Amino acid sequence: MTERAVCVIGTGLIGGSLMRTAGKAGRTVWGTSDSPDTAEEARADGFDVTTDTDAALRRAAEDDALVVLAVPLPALPGVLRRVDAVAPTCRLTDTVSVKVAVADHVARYAPSARFVGGHPMAGTAESGWAAGQAGLFTGAAWVVAADDGLDLDVWADVAELAWACGARVVPAAADEHDLAVARVSHLPHLLAAVLAAVGAAGEDDLPLALAASSFADGTRVAGTRPELVLAMCEGNRDALLGAVDDALGRLGAMRGALASTGGLAATVNAGYAGRQRWAAARDPEAVRVRRSRLALPALREVGRRGDAVVGWTE
Amino acid sequence: MTERAVCVIGTGLIGGSLMRTAGKAGRTVWGTSDSPDTAEEARADGFDVTTDTDAALRRAAEDDALVVLAVPLPALPGVLRRVDAVAPTCRLTDTVSVKVAVADHVARYAPSARFVGGHPMAGTAESGWAAGQAGLFTGAAWVVAADDGLDLDVWADVAELAWACGARVVPAAADEHDLAVARVSHLPHLLAAVLAAVGAAGEDDLPLALAASSFADGTRVAGTRPELVLAMCEGNRDALLGAVDDALGRLGAMRGALASTGGLAATVNAGYAGRQRWAAARDPEAVRVRRSRLALPALREVGRRGDAVVGWTE
Repeated sequence: MTERAVCVIGTGLIGGSLMRTAGKAGRTVWGTSDSPDTAEEARADGFDVTTDTDAALRRAAEDDALVVLAVPLPALPGVLRRVDAVAPTCRLTDTVSVKVAVADHVARYAPSARFVGGHPMAGTAESGWAAGQAGLFTGAAWVVAADDGLDLDVWADVAELAWACGARVVPAAADEHDLAVARVSHLPHLLAAVLAAVGAAGEDDLPLALAASSFADGTRVAGTRPELVLAMCEGNRDALLGAVDDALGRLGAMRGALASTGGLAATVNAGYAGRQRWAAARDPEAVRVRRSRLALPALREVGRRGDAVVGWTE
Repeated sequence: MTERAVCVIGTGLIGGSLMRTAGKAGRTVWGTSDSPDTAEEARADGFDVTTDTDAALRRAAEDDALVVLAVPLPALPGVLRRVDAVAPTCRLTDTVSVKVAVADHVARYAPSARFVGGHPMAGTAESGWAAGQAGLFTGAAWVVAADDGLDLDVWADVAELAWACGARVVPAAADEHDLAVARVSHLPHLLAAVLAAVGAAGEDDLPLALAASSFADGTRVAGTRPELVLAMCEGNRDALLGAVDDALGRLGAMRGALASTGGLAATVNAGYAGRQRWAAARDPEAVRVRRSRLALPALREVGRRGDAVVGWTE
C-alpha cells in the first residue's frame, strides 16, 4: 500500500480532523488556511499549515501527493483555479457534501486534475480548526465517487486515505450520492429548521419551557452555523427539491387525514417502519475488493446495497 | 407538608416510574395494572400492584389518597367510570400528554372528582413497567393545570407530588398546554415520522447507509411504539392542526424559494434563531409561592413566562 502524502486545502472541522487523523496514521500531511490566525493556531498545535496555497500545491505536484479540497462549495472555484495553475494534473479529491456540483466545478476550472470525489459522512454542530479531532471519522461512511471514466489508481488512493482514517468506503455515482444525501442529510437540516421556527413562533415562552427531548433532538442540527447549512443544501438544489416534495406530499396527506378522519396511523406506522429499516441497515456487510481489478459498476452495486468496502483482498 | 398517599392507575413507563420515585420519596404508594403479568412483575420488584382497580380506588377513597391516572387517553373513559362508581369525590390527577380532552372526559365520566390535570414532560422511546426508573422526572417540567375553578388544595397536592419526584411545576391552562405541546412534542413526532419514511422510501439502501447523526437524531422518536404516538397526537387534533399548518406553510415557502431563487437563508436563519431562543430558555426562573394564597391567574403567568414553581414560601 502506497503511503501517499496528503495536502489538505482548508483546515475547518473536516480538514482539521483529517490532518490530525492522517498524521496519526503515519502519513506526511500539510495544509493551507485562508486565515493567518487559523494557520498560526494549527502550527501552534504542531501541524504544517500555511496561508500560501500555491506553495502547498506546488509541493503536492512535486511529491505526487493526494490533494484534498476541504473547503465549502462556494470557495471551490477560486481554489480550483490555483490547482489548475500550479498543480494541473495532481491527484485530487474533496470532502464536500454534494458531488455533482463539485465534479462540474472541477471539469470547468481544473479539467486536467485526476479527480475522484469524496464525502466523509461525519461532522458535529461545531466548526473550525479547534473543533477538529483525530477520531472524527472512526466508523463513519466515506463516500468515494464511482462514476465511469475516473482514474482507478486515484480511486484506490482515496479509499486508502479513508481506511487510514478509520472509515469504511461507500462507493456511489455522484448523482446517486446527491439524491441520497438530499433525503438523509439535507432534508433533516431543513425539517429541523422548520421545527425550531414553529416551536419558537409563539409570543410567550410556555412552548419552549415544555420542549423536552423530542424537540431537543429534532432541532439539534438547526444549531449548525447557517452558512454551512446553506452551502451544502443550496449546492444540491435539484436533488433537494425532490426530497422536499416527497416530505411535503407526506405532510399534506397527513394533514388531510388529521382534518377528516382524525387518523394518523398511516403516517406514524410508515415512520416507525422507516426507522426500523434504518436500524436494520446499521450493520453493513464489509466487502473487500482486489486492487488490481477494480470495476466501477460492481463498486456502485456495493453502495446501492448499503454495504461498504473496507480493504483490499490479498 | 402533607405526605399524601398515592394511588397510581396504570404501571407503564410513567406510572411505573412514578411508583418507584414516590416510594423512594417516602410516600405510601399502591397501583393497578390491567395485565396480571405486569402486576406480578411489579410485585416481584417489591411494589404493591394489583389488577383489582376497584379495590385500589376504594382504598384511595378511605385514605383520601391522590389518585393518578397514568393510562393512555383511549383507556380513560373506562377507568373514570370506576372512579365515579367507587371513589366519586377523590383527589384526582393524571399524566396524559393532552389536557383539554382529559378534562372533558373527567367532566363527563367522573364529574364529582376533585380533578387537577397534570403532565410530567419526561419519557423515553421505551415503554412498560420494566422501562420505568426512579429518576425519570428529575429536573423535568411537570405541567399542573391552572384553569379557573379547580380545587386549590388538590393543586397543592399535585405540585407537592411533582416536587417529591424532583420535577419543577409549570402551571398552564389546559388549552394553552395543548397548543404548546402540539408545537414542541406532537409535531416533532410527526416530522420525525415523515423524515424516516422519506429516508427509507428508495428502492436501494444507499440513503440509509449514508444516514449519519442528523438523520439518527431527527428520526429518533419515530422509533416510539406507534400506539403511544397515535394516542397522544390524535387526542390533540385541534391544536395539532394549527401546528401542522404552520409547518406546512413554512415548508411550502421554503420549497418556493428553493425552486425560484435557490435561496434557503430565510428558512435556515429562522431555524437557527429558534434553536438559540430554545437554548436561552433552558434556564427558567425558580419561583416560590405561598401555599395559603394560591392565585390561578398569577400561576398561569409563571408558565407563560416559561418559568416554574419549585416550592412554597415560608
